[in-house]
Amino acid sequence: MTHPGFFLVLEGGDGVGKSTQAQLLTEWLGSPVGGFAEVIHTREPGGTELGVALRDAVMHGGHVAPRAEALLYAADRAHHIATVVRPALERGAAVVQDRYVDSSIVYQGGARGLGDQVEKISRWATEDLMPDLTVVLDMEPSADRMARDLDRVEAETASRAQEIRQAYRDLARAGGDRYVVVGADRDPASVSHDIQQAVTAALESRG
Amino acid sequence: MTHPGFFLVLEGGDGVGKSTQAQLLTEWLGSPVGGFAEVIHTREPGGTELGVALRDAVMHGGHVAPRAEALLYAADRAHHIATVVRPALERGAAVVQDRYVDSSIVYQGGARGLGDQVEKISRWATEDLMPDLTVVLDMEPSADRMARDLDRVEAETASRAQEIRQAYRDLARAGGDRYVVVGADRDPASVSHDIQQAVTAALESRG
Repeated sequence: MTHPGFFLVLEGGDGVGKSTQAQLLTEWLGSPVGGFAEVIHTREPGGTELGVALRDAVMHGGHVAPRAEALLYAADRAHHIATVVRPALERGAAVVQDRYVDSSIVYQGGARGLGDQVEKISRWATEDLMPDLTVVLDMEPSADRMARDLDRVEAETASRAQEIRQAYRDLARAGGDRYVVVGADRDPASVSHDIQQAVTAALESRG
Repeated sequence: MTHPGFFLVLEGGDGVGKSTQAQLLTEWLGSPVGGFAEVIHTREPGGTELGVALRDAVMHGGHVAPRAEALLYAADRAHHIATVVRPALERGAAVVQDRYVDSSIVYQGGARGLGDQVEKISRWATEDLMPDLTVVLDMEPSADRMARDLDRVEAETASRAQEIRQAYRDLARAGGDRYVVVGADRDPASVSHDIQQAVTAALESRG
């Protein structure tokens, strides 16, 4: 299950700047300094056509039983990894992905009380594909954002923002070298600079 | 997890007459002889609005990665059991269902080489809800049906019809009292009569 590519995952609560950082990082990895001939920026949920349909069903389709929701996210992930991410990694590409297994653990697992079953199902869905590096974007949840008009999933999420922040920090601490926690409450260029340093270190350490 | 209802599942390959038998059985269970004030006839996949959308995605949405497909069926099942079947059983209803966990084992598990993981995921999806009785409708696959114009899933299925028949027989043998195998290559009324006898025995044995 090894591959010649580089699988980088961005994690963190809503509003920490994952999309912006993913874009900056995608550009940097594809530049002469980054050194990858092919870089893919993708996301979960919704990184495939099937995934978009599933995301719509979960977010706007009325009540979905909690275990059904967790399994839909896992299905989206299985399809996305098998048809997009793994083929790219096998071609030697860098893959920059917004959210992965840790999001399921934090959102469906911990918060919905489904425990480590959610992680097991995700591992099965992905045939145990692990990121080469997970970047946790960390910041104090913004009261401003929490008060805005939010959809169902976002509204639940906002009320748990502190809990989610802590859950990510705990995962990073337990994960050791394969994680880096980056303070995200700064200008995007500074944040990106710190991420680039962490990526460079990760690439060097694997030779 | 006990309930005052009766959960009856009809299993077997395509074209063995599950829908017809489910209908006859639903009527009989709701009659004075059957004795249930409420009888629900439902099916998987597709027994809920969400399930119908998921079934369409799997059957007509192009290639779906095998593990994603298995997880989508499990998601459909989780939602269906949590929102339709379990509430009905808790009200004391009889639930007659076309296909359940055994279908996943036979179709996604055995045939696609995903082993007993598929069963484990299904058990998690349903919080271990087991049928009170599973009726396996058994018959020699019809060459006629196999030659007809079939959609993607049905076409794959037809070519494996013999293997599927045997897989159901094996599950029934291993499952003991909670299973009955009924020869289905006869007039529907005779088949229904045999099923009714098995249901009566199952209801009596649990008192």
